[in-house]
Amino acid sequence: MTRFTGIIPPLCTPFRDDFTIDVDSLRRHLDVQLDAGVHGVFVLGSSSEVAFLPDRQRRVVIETAVAHVGGRIPVLAGCIDMTTLRVAEHIRVAEEAGADALVITAPYYTRTHSAEIEQHFRLLHAQASLPIFAYDIPVAVHSKLDREMVLRLAEDGVLAGLKDSSGDEAGFGALLLGRRERGLSEFAVFTGSELVVDLALQMGADGAVPGLANVDPAGYVTIWDRVRAGDLATARREQDRLMRLYDITHAAPPERMGRGSAGLGAFKAAMKMRGFIDNSVMAPPQLPLNDEELLRIKGALTEAGLL
Amino acid sequence: MTRFTGIIPPLCTPFRDDFTIDVDSLRRHLDVQLDAGVHGVFVLGSSSEVAFLPDRQRRVVIETAVAHVGGRIPVLAGCIDMTTLRVAEHIRVAEEAGADALVITAPYYTRTHSAEIEQHFRLLHAQASLPIFAYDIPVAVHSKLDREMVLRLAEDGVLAGLKDSSGDEAGFGALLLGRRERGLSEFAVFTGSELVVDLALQMGADGAVPGLANVDPAGYVTIWDRVRAGDLATARREQDRLMRLYDITHAAPPERMGRGSAGLGAFKAAMKMRGFIDNSVMAPPQLPLNDEELLRIKGALTEAGLL
Amino acid sequence: MTRFTGIIPPLCTPFRDDFTIDVDSLRRHLDVQLDAGVHGVFVLGSSSEVAFLPDRQRRVVIETAVAHVGGRIPVLAGCIDMTTLRVAEHIRVAEEAGADALVITAPYYTRTHSAEIEQHFRLLHAQASLPIFAYDIPVAVHSKLDREMVLRLAEDGVLAGLKDSSGDEAGFGALLLGRRERGLSEFAVFTGSELVVDLALQMGADGAVPGLANVDPAGYVTIWDRVRAGDLATARREQDRLMRLYDITHAAPPERMGRGSAGLGAFKAAMKMRGFIDNSVMAPPQLPLNDEELLRIKGALTEAGLL
Amino acid sequence: MTRFTGIIPPLCTPFRDDFTIDVDSLRRHLDVQLDAGVHGVFVLGSSSEVAFLPDRQRRVVIETAVAHVGGRIPVLAGCIDMTTLRVAEHIRVAEEAGADALVITAPYYTRTHSAEIEQHFRLLHAQASLPIFAYDIPVAVHSKLDREMVLRLAEDGVLAGLKDSSGDEAGFGALLLGRRERGLSEFAVFTGSELVVDLALQMGADGAVPGLANVDPAGYVTIWDRVRAGDLATARREQDRLMRLYDITHAAPPERMGRGSAGLGAFKAAMKMRGFIDNSVMAPPQLPLNDEELLRIKGALTEAGLL
Repeated sequence: MTRFTGIIPPLCTPFRDDFTIDVDSLRRHLDVQLDAGVHGVFVLGSSSEVAFLPDRQRRVVIETAVAHVGGRIPVLAGCIDMTTLRVAEHIRVAEEAGADALVITAPYYTRTHSAEIEQHFRLLHAQASLPIFAYDIPVAVHSKLDREMVLRLAEDGVLAGLKDSSGDEAGFGALLLGRRERGLSEFAVFTGSELVVDLALQMGADGAVPGLANVDPAGYVTIWDRVRAGDLATARREQDRLMRLYDITHAAPPERMGRGSAGLGAFKAAMKMRGFIDNSVMAPPQLPLNDEELLRIKGALTEAGLL
Repeated sequence: MTRFTGIIPPLCTPFRDDFTIDVDSLRRHLDVQLDAGVHGVFVLGSSSEVAFLPDRQRRVVIETAVAHVGGRIPVLAGCIDMTTLRVAEHIRVAEEAGADALVITAPYYTRTHSAEIEQHFRLLHAQASLPIFAYDIPVAVHSKLDREMVLRLAEDGVLAGLKDSSGDEAGFGALLLGRRERGLSEFAVFTGSELVVDLALQMGADGAVPGLANVDPAGYVTIWDRVRAGDLATARREQDRLMRLYDITHAAPPERMGRGSAGLGAFKAAMKMRGFIDNSVMAPPQLPLNDEELLRIKGALTEAGLL
Repeated sequence: MTRFTGIIPPLCTPFRDDFTIDVDSLRRHLDVQLDAGVHGVFVLGSSSEVAFLPDRQRRVVIETAVAHVGGRIPVLAGCIDMTTLRVAEHIRVAEEAGADALVITAPYYTRTHSAEIEQHFRLLHAQASLPIFAYDIPVAVHSKLDREMVLRLAEDGVLAGLKDSSGDEAGFGALLLGRRERGLSEFAVFTGSELVVDLALQMGADGAVPGLANVDPAGYVTIWDRVRAGDLATARREQDRLMRLYDITHAAPPERMGRGSAGLGAFKAAMKMRGFIDNSVMAPPQLPLNDEELLRIKGALTEAGLL
Repeated sequence: MTRFTGIIPPLCTPFRDDFTIDVDSLRRHLDVQLDAGVHGVFVLGSSSEVAFLPDRQRRVVIETAVAHVGGRIPVLAGCIDMTTLRVAEHIRVAEEAGADALVITAPYYTRTHSAEIEQHFRLLHAQASLPIFAYDIPVAVHSKLDREMVLRLAEDGVLAGLKDSSGDEAGFGALLLGRRERGLSEFAVFTGSELVVDLALQMGADGAVPGLANVDPAGYVTIWDRVRAGDLATARREQDRLMRLYDITHAAPPERMGRGSAGLGAFKAAMKMRGFIDNSVMAPPQLPLNDEELLRIKGALTEAGLL
């Protein structure tokens, strides 16, 4: 059985006003997560604003997380960049910094192809010493990982796992079925969804990487515990509560800002309101939430019993 | 009248087998371009495999180009990255290296918004000393620059120009019309198309940035000269010849590889066949063209009178 | 409690070689479905090749189904056309023919808008006497029904239900939650997925409209029965079996034909192999499966214990 | 030399308040077009709200146009429907009604494939007696016609022509080049763009099918005449004037309605203001323009010297 299992929140990255890493807040946020009983943390995923972070800040994030967690739970590190040679540099940093696993997307910016995506993972595996998770996130990279390719890479030991943020739950189910049929029990499969965690676990997923766990890690740990205990009704109620809470990501309307900043802005605002971090500023060029939107988030947190 | 005008090829980047920059070939290719009479060069654009180049290699490319060109024509440098802070670092490098202008896309990987794209350009302009060209390339960044926003940024002096690789020629015409109506004659507008350069010039574009000029710069200079001389028929014939030549980008079929590597692979193969560069290797994870595809390219070059 | 509940297969339409309706086969297929215990049938949905059927053939399908079913279970009829006035004509026919409910998509071909989609449903409701189900099928109509709009139309009594074929299970869960929160228990919500039926039912869906039930209705009835009995493990195993069977829709590769004809061709071939219909011909311009593909389907049916 | 050449406006369809055809207005509008010197008319194209018209209204439109035009110029009739058998019924009507040519899109609603699109055109050609124009309109049918397929169908005599509303001017140029290289001078190629007509003609197109010609047919006839006379500068100025006029299609903002109704609503409002038709009502579920938007259109017409 793999050690990568359970609730592994993709951590938001707290900034100071000059967009350097607020290391104190990051540590406090890590404590919040550890106290809630999460089973791992994923730094430098999409929720971390990794796409907005200069390389030296990325390094600070991994080093801080690895040092603060101190081996209590695994630290997965996103190595998010456009193509192989650039990702390879992030891998080197993540490995030096002591991460436990690497999370890597398909190439982007370039118009790629499934054969090239496969080549990408194979080349990176050849030079990495840590296990590699494929990160299936079409909303960011504009291609979907092919299921057969993923299973082939799992069989060949190239991929140690998958984080599926594609929103294609039927395809996720088919992947889990394919994993079972090929006896790939070592291959760890996580959903990146916030909204169907209980169902993903019932389908056989090894865990979840829900962005909303930045705001309410205990909720997701409850889902995990309840599903494992066979108490699906409670898990479902908890998932429903979190689905309602997820509405904070719609506080800022699509006419006003991107869906990225609306979502991350809501997470960071809620994290600040709950005292997890000091500053909810987002990296440029993302726009800040306004007072009305913040008030709506506060209301949702109160209603959810989180304030 | 702006100094950014005419044919400004987006240079491919020659590599050695270890994917470091083949500086000798790059210089030779610059000489080819200068000899053909191009009016500028654009390094680190999409055709350069910028998305595949580690930062230190990017720096080598700019420095080599600036030093070798020695001020004879302007050198535009792509500062291609996902968001503001990361682009800002590339700007710093390009400015140190002596580029003449910066070329910048909308944010990508993140789900952005027109208001955030505008913020992106404004923030970067505030800290850059060189003129900024917006680079409209939806096929890579998956958003299209809004025309009104571009014109507003031109009016405010944020943008010095635009490279339009959107393929939307009607929108391009509307932009040129808007420029004229608002008296923005300083704002330089370039098409990124290989295939409608004569028409773009007739519509009033200041020039073109055609990837195929890596293979046949003289052809595009001819179009430029003939349109300016009012000899549209010859320009059209030359454009037709180049449109035919452009078929080399389809030598490798879409079932086999991405449209990125098929296109850049064809350019580099043709550049090598013509003696411009020593090595046509592409950065990983792009797949190489096979012998049959190379033969087809050779045939097309021969037919076009280029071999 | 609504009478629209349970497994309601979207029936494929058997043709004769001249593409008229094979009424005998249609009746036999209806018997197969009734014998399997399905709770309704949906004729003239996407699986029926409704987009390929001339109007007079559509009428034959509804009339045949209504007459043969004879009120034992409800017959839902798709009224699939581009815009309001054209759909209104199909509604008139369906009502004359004795259908029990109407299933209607968003407008297509035209570039529409959520306010216009809402108007579409309101206008059609004003002139229909039968209950209307919204049919959310972005893969066909290229727009997604807005969740708030759907709930508003449910509150206003415009919509009696929804068939969700969007593949967005998280959004489906959010809709079910919204229904619960607003006390819209009369509003019937069905998943159109073949692959996550057990999960959709656990989330609170009233039923499923799975195309694969044309091939194996008993399987889906088993899922329905087992979920209602609280025996989720058996339901899951049955869903897994059906997910494996669903691979028949990939027997013909995407290089060779559209995903529509590959899927419907597989359903019809399997239906013929199982003796449900006489002829598996598909309406033009869909391409037929070849012998190798048919053999693969036969193998899958055998493995699934269906031959 | 083909008789299909020149400016062939895709006529808007005037309605009475009950959405039946306003035959008097349609005749008057035909007179306006004939007086302006257009070289053909295209009824039941996208601009006609064909997607909104019940079949019997479609027939009225063709019959009215054919009778009123009386052979002075050709009448092309759109046969717009989802798939082969349904299109075949529209062909029968158009042929009975006396149209001169048929205009047919790729299949839609169904997820199709290039091989099936080709099959579609071949089957329809086999049973049609009139020449067939392919209608390339991805914004409506969500697939793009493959260039090689179009040229192959032209070579085989299946297609008599093409109306290209894809917005891909570079691809349009490549098609024209392919036509020339294969000696297909009988194959008539039209642009469906309003905005690059002069350029399309210079590239070698046989004509244009511009929706905006409903509002200003004389303008497009001027472009046609001036390009043929070699007076490109005047053609360009006229195209610029029409490009400015085209802004009326943006009078209604995208937040308020679909791009279809915004465009057609603007055309019909302008046609009414110019006295071409009596009533600018649009078929449901399209939303009407409001007073402010109408005022903006009036201003644009005045500025363009059309009121």
